[in-house]
Amino acid sequence: MRCFVAGGAGFIGSHLVDRLMESGHTVVVADNLCLGKKELLARHFGTERFCFYETDVANSQEVEHLIELHAIDRVYHFAANSDIRKSGKDPAIDIHDTFGTTLAILQAMRKQHVKELVFASTSAVYGNRQGETLTEDIGGLVPVSYYGGAKLASEAFISAFSAMCDMQVNIIRFPNVVGERLTHGVIYDFVRKLKLNSEELEILGDGKQEKPYIYVGDLIDAILMLPFIEEGVQIFNAGVESSTSVSRIADIVCEEMGLTGVKYKFTGGSVGWKGDVAKFQYDLSKIHQTGWLAKHTSDEAVRIAAKAAIR
Amino acid sequence: MRCFVAGGAGFIGSHLVDRLMESGHTVVVADNLCLGKKELLARHFGTERFCFYETDVANSQEVEHLIELHAIDRVYHFAANSDIRKSGKDPAIDIHDTFGTTLAILQAMRKQHVKELVFASTSAVYGNRQGETLTEDIGGLVPVSYYGGAKLASEAFISAFSAMCDMQVNIIRFPNVVGERLTHGVIYDFVRKLKLNSEELEILGDGKQEKPYIYVGDLIDAILMLPFIEEGVQIFNAGVESSTSVSRIADIVCEEMGLTGVKYKFTGGSVGWKGDVAKFQYDLSKIHQTGWLAKHTSDEAVRIAAKAAIR
Repeated sequence: MRCFVAGGAGFIGSHLVDRLMESGHTVVVADNLCLGKKELLARHFGTERFCFYETDVANSQEVEHLIELHAIDRVYHFAANSDIRKSGKDPAIDIHDTFGTTLAILQAMRKQHVKELVFASTSAVYGNRQGETLTEDIGGLVPVSYYGGAKLASEAFISAFSAMCDMQVNIIRFPNVVGERLTHGVIYDFVRKLKLNSEELEILGDGKQEKPYIYVGDLIDAILMLPFIEEGVQIFNAGVESSTSVSRIADIVCEEMGLTGVKYKFTGGSVGWKGDVAKFQYDLSKIHQTGWLAKHTSDEAVRIAAKAAIR
Repeated sequence: MRCFVAGGAGFIGSHLVDRLMESGHTVVVADNLCLGKKELLARHFGTERFCFYETDVANSQEVEHLIELHAIDRVYHFAANSDIRKSGKDPAIDIHDTFGTTLAILQAMRKQHVKELVFASTSAVYGNRQGETLTEDIGGLVPVSYYGGAKLASEAFISAFSAMCDMQVNIIRFPNVVGERLTHGVIYDFVRKLKLNSEELEILGDGKQEKPYIYVGDLIDAILMLPFIEEGVQIFNAGVESSTSVSRIADIVCEEMGLTGVKYKFTGGSVGWKGDVAKFQYDLSKIHQTGWLAKHTSDEAVRIAAKAAIR
């Protein structure tokens, strides 16, 4: 198969590229290298069925050119701003990097008659729904961050393009994804802070925010395993049943760094920053029915990521 | 109150402008005059508290400039491509006219700290949900037209901006709206066709597509009556309990034109064109609880529109 991976030099994208290459596919990566890093793909350079382009995926002409040039069969759209906290200060970031990339890809796919799309969506489309179990078709989606808005807006246009251009689409709503190659986020931040000062750790909020963290390898398993339906859009939550609080993450990072007696300094409040969603829990029955189940718990995933971030 | 009406020279927008002017508000209209017509606002030119700008509302700088210049308190966003059938041939139309205008308005409001927004959304966000009664918070929204996708994407970004910038928003999901000043659509088409040939009328589909048509005056009543909540987004279906089939519309138009024995020529199939939604029925209990109720049935609304289109 001839695959186009938008955002393939990023944290999750690069893991996907590794697995697609292992399976013998032709892989064309486009990434603007804002958050992505070429080094993550180093092992594939020089392989004939691998191509890398440093380009802005929000440029539809450019995407269309690459899709045509490489006669692409399937697009994996993993290009997005993934730093929700940063983009809260300027909506233009998610409008361009998270939403604009989707629109450009859809327009290019339409013109080049590419029919298969896998889209990396997010739990942030649900908004702040504490106490509710989130099924894929729950109503009243009210994203509270520009990132969540941009992903839900992407899903809306994907639905329309799928119906109008007969595309088959798998949308996977990711929770927090962790593992090797993290570029930001709470685990990454804690390691960085503790390397500077191993006595004290500032923790945003009250430390009780609790989220499910999925191991990136488990997520890639799900992405590669989900079948396409004949027509239209399928949406799946992908995640783990367990979850990990921010304080527990701090404990795990300290353990892995061999630090004891670190003083936690909480900034207070129940939310880390504007647009953050403190607690949520997915209903995973739909994806579990396909036979997939995450191999690692949330705590285990956090530990793997912490180990890798320390190195 | 100082109101900005995007798309105020359009069919629905111009009716809103009339009513806002009647109530003594200051009204600033921006419209690109693609579908809108300056003549519809003729009566207001020369009134001091009325301003008209021929401009592309998808240009955020321009919108921001006007909002600042006129110290706007509230934005009514009625600018959109409203010809779903036409835009099915090119997604760029809805991406720019329907979605791009929303994004530009949100960015301008954010920068100028405008807090109140009324957004004209649509039944098309629900997609093809035959046999289901559509409540505002029903899940699994899968628009099947670029227009529906662009409106749902707009709602997604509105949710995010509302949460991030503390905006109060009323989103009203319009069904088919008819009345004086129609610029396109089935009633308009039938009148035009019958003026050319009063013997025969081509009808797209099998004539059984049945939709609720609301009278524009009733809709404006709803828009002006709905209170804002203190914070966040409220979504309302606005509509009528009754509905009118395409064949019945043909009958009404023929009656109003005084034509008898017109031969209907059906193109066949259950859907008029790709992206069309043949049948749907709103749950209206939420908006009825506010005290508003449409004064005209669907058939009555169609008849008023037919009379006006014939003139």
